[in-house]
Amino acid sequence: MSQSRAVPMVPFLSRCNMALRRVLALAAALGRRSCCSKPSLPPDFVEALRTVVGAPNVSTATAVREQHGHDESMHPCAPPDVVVWPQAVEQVQELAALCHRSRVPMVPFGTGTGLEGGVNAVQGGVCFDLSRMDAIAELSLEDFSVAVEPGVTHKALNKHLRGTGLWFPVVPAVSMWEWTPSPPASPAHPLLADPGADASLCGMAATGASGTNAVRYGAMRPNVLNLRVVLPDGRLLHTAGPGRHPRKRAAGYDLTSLFVGSEGTLGFLTQATLRLHPLPEASAVTIASFPSVGAAVACTVQVLQAAVPVARIEFLDEVMADACSRFSEMGLPVAATLLLELHGSQRSLAEQQQQTEEIVHQNGGSSVAWAEGQEERERLWSMRHNAWYAALALRPGCQGYSTDVCVPISRLPDVVVETKQDLQASNITGPMVGHVGDGNFHCILVFNSQDPEEAQRIHAFTERLGRRALAAGGTCTGEHGVGLGKRTLLQEELGPEGLDTLRSIKAALDPHNLMNPGKVL
Amino acid sequence: MSQSRAVPMVPFLSRCNMALRRVLALAAALGRRSCCSKPSLPPDFVEALRTVVGAPNVSTATAVREQHGHDESMHPCAPPDVVVWPQAVEQVQELAALCHRSRVPMVPFGTGTGLEGGVNAVQGGVCFDLSRMDAIAELSLEDFSVAVEPGVTHKALNKHLRGTGLWFPVVPAVSMWEWTPSPPASPAHPLLADPGADASLCGMAATGASGTNAVRYGAMRPNVLNLRVVLPDGRLLHTAGPGRHPRKRAAGYDLTSLFVGSEGTLGFLTQATLRLHPLPEASAVTIASFPSVGAAVACTVQVLQAAVPVARIEFLDEVMADACSRFSEMGLPVAATLLLELHGSQRSLAEQQQQTEEIVHQNGGSSVAWAEGQEERERLWSMRHNAWYAALALRPGCQGYSTDVCVPISRLPDVVVETKQDLQASNITGPMVGHVGDGNFHCILVFNSQDPEEAQRIHAFTERLGRRALAAGGTCTGEHGVGLGKRTLLQEELGPEGLDTLRSIKAALDPHNLMNPGKVL
Repeated sequence: MSQSRAVPMVPFLSRCNMALRRVLALAAALGRRSCCSKPSLPPDFVEALRTVVGAPNVSTATAVREQHGHDESMHPCAPPDVVVWPQAVEQVQELAALCHRSRVPMVPFGTGTGLEGGVNAVQGGVCFDLSRMDAIAELSLEDFSVAVEPGVTHKALNKHLRGTGLWFPVVPAVSMWEWTPSPPASPAHPLLADPGADASLCGMAATGASGTNAVRYGAMRPNVLNLRVVLPDGRLLHTAGPGRHPRKRAAGYDLTSLFVGSEGTLGFLTQATLRLHPLPEASAVTIASFPSVGAAVACTVQVLQAAVPVARIEFLDEVMADACSRFSEMGLPVAATLLLELHGSQRSLAEQQQQTEEIVHQNGGSSVAWAEGQEERERLWSMRHNAWYAALALRPGCQGYSTDVCVPISRLPDVVVETKQDLQASNITGPMVGHVGDGNFHCILVFNSQDPEEAQRIHAFTERLGRRALAAGGTCTGEHGVGLGKRTLLQEELGPEGLDTLRSIKAALDPHNLMNPGKVL
Repeated sequence: MSQSRAVPMVPFLSRCNMALRRVLALAAALGRRSCCSKPSLPPDFVEALRTVVGAPNVSTATAVREQHGHDESMHPCAPPDVVVWPQAVEQVQELAALCHRSRVPMVPFGTGTGLEGGVNAVQGGVCFDLSRMDAIAELSLEDFSVAVEPGVTHKALNKHLRGTGLWFPVVPAVSMWEWTPSPPASPAHPLLADPGADASLCGMAATGASGTNAVRYGAMRPNVLNLRVVLPDGRLLHTAGPGRHPRKRAAGYDLTSLFVGSEGTLGFLTQATLRLHPLPEASAVTIASFPSVGAAVACTVQVLQAAVPVARIEFLDEVMADACSRFSEMGLPVAATLLLELHGSQRSLAEQQQQTEEIVHQNGGSSVAWAEGQEERERLWSMRHNAWYAALALRPGCQGYSTDVCVPISRLPDVVVETKQDLQASNITGPMVGHVGDGNFHCILVFNSQDPEEAQRIHAFTERLGRRALAAGGTCTGEHGVGLGKRTLLQEELGPEGLDTLRSIKAALDPHNLMNPGKVL
């Protein structure tokens, strides 16, 4: 394939190859300025920003802007014109009003751990880095609720909750760029010491994130009780009314659910009131190998049908199981594999374990050994959370790209098998890992970003995977969001009436298209 | 109080006093025509409706229009100009397009069992009675999903699900006007034979209903996977895309959650794809009396904190407990009372029961006897579902009005105690019953609708109750919706920015204000 067809390479450029990224970003920025004749910031605009938040909390330095111009995806860096660090919601309001008056684009930024280019400032403007707003407030153990600002990550919250008997169970599965195992001698509840990715809880609300526990505890949406939102013109909205956190409401349209998953395109989420859950008395983890994908999925369906209150059911295809096994030195069979976690009281756990074992065996699964101690538990979950690195280790020196789809569970075996055939026919390394209880899975595509032909193949594959999920009655994204990368697939998923409806809502709440422009729609 | 202040009487007129209602409705309709100079239907408009659905499916008969001009609330009947019975979604689309072209208001009608005047045609127009669209389709036992049209009630669905091992657990607590106990020798699972109100599932989605099981299974919103909506101009929208039912999505704004609870003001819900749940192997019900409201609520909080997966926790204040006890001949103490239901496997149930008993006793609750047989189980739930009639029996010949609020559970004891003091000071009979696990409770206000002074006291009390819930960080409605009755309270709940946001969304999706005008906003 000739170099003239190299355009699709761009989305998959190595994040690690920062020098190349910066050159491209600069070119893109220059190109944007010259081609799109986007006006530069008004005179004295940056000075006005400084007046609001103080000079040390405003930066136009190239390195800072570039650092804020990308997330953990492969989308090319698109730096904002300026980065601001508001310290309080009133400052966010003043800054937004300033931008609104001057029609300057605004991009919210939390921890930058998104996976679909949600923070890339494709039309420049002001990046609002909200990480310094990190208050945890209004913790109520009786109401099972707490309010967090954008600088609070789920790890920070769960650390804060130690000793209360409560936790926030929505945990992203894995971060590509950061992974911190819990301290070896942690005295906390094993679930609070869970290894895994870290992300801003408000950012997780913004993208509608979920993760491994969603099958039991739900994704972000049902776990957000209220959002304090700064609207594009600087006004303050509380989606469930100011200071409210009832467990349920039937009062007017559900603004909370509308802003969850809006990916920063409707306003700034400056505080999220979250629903907490009681920590289970005990938990148990096991791993089982199956003769086929179908058998692993059938096992999952039967566990759910039997009303076993399973907390996590993670699927690894045989390529991923093998890669993880070798990376984490586990000695697992090369087979479709399930990692199951049960939560409950000590006594109920024993019954759940027995039911699970029976269903595993009925589906031809391997014998089940339960890891109940924290060390053994962490060893299994570390293996799962190291899936990204295990995948990369399949092709040393190559890059990774994680894509996500979600299908009705009945269609999962077919979709997985077809996807495996597609991977083989396309000569792509793409181990699969997924939250099988929800029908949600990821392909971790490992490829040589320096090879435009391979990048093109990866790009075409991800489009086919999205369309395969749509054809199976599923969605192009179960938890990563649309961002920059899945806008075309979203059109196909919703159809013209759906997209028109989204556009109407966007136009109604952000008529000047200032909030994170170019994303989702 | 003089007759000149009799206006607030109107919302509380006896539904049973149909003759008076009709006179008032006629007067209201005439008044509307003369005062508001609302144009009558365009010439040949009714004929055009007949062309779409056939003459037998269109009616302008007074009795029919009046039957469709009210729900189960006390709001005065406001009949539509014409009632149509579409048989298929294409007909709904054609009819809506007709109305849209002629700018005629449209009001969706399911079973008419709402509680806040949601179906009252306050601006006349066309009532779409969707009850003849009653298909149950796309049942998938592996995906735990099914699609239902508006004519399908939750009882019809659960009957349809018999033998599958699945059920739809969102069940309204009580209907005022219809209550059918299950057949005595029903062979079905006890939960499928549950007595209780019946309502259209699409209607329940439209109002964001919940009920007694919500503490365990959630309200309608998290249990709806997709909605087939006819938009005000007749276009067809699938909120999660056509034919899709993944368990989770992160693709664009959550249109499903937006239309759930929109009370017919954004479009017609012509099909809902619902999430089903596995029937538990066993269930157990018990009832316990407590020394105070605070003790009953403390018991509830501790049960939730102990992660007992309780399915229902219903609260009855001592007035309600006494009324129910006498009405159903139960011999209960006159005390704050909890009705608890547990779901699980036989073995896990035993442990849940033991945990629950311990917590009940720790909070000074009475000794606990478990009703595990279906007959005993139904007896207890019949008592709860007869709460409406038990309340009415407190003042024979009087009328009832049920109002609902929801507060953070930590504030529930104070709010309940203050409300009881208010009832006493206002000389109002208003026993309380509630879904205490969610902080949601109802006052069943029993009053003489022929006494305008008392009606005025009832009206003032409900406004104070709503404001008390708001002051406690709660909502003016946890499950009944806003409809006609709580529009002022909604403004206070959301504040100007919240209401502006709702209005923007309404204007974006229904720019001519044709869908159920006068409701919510």
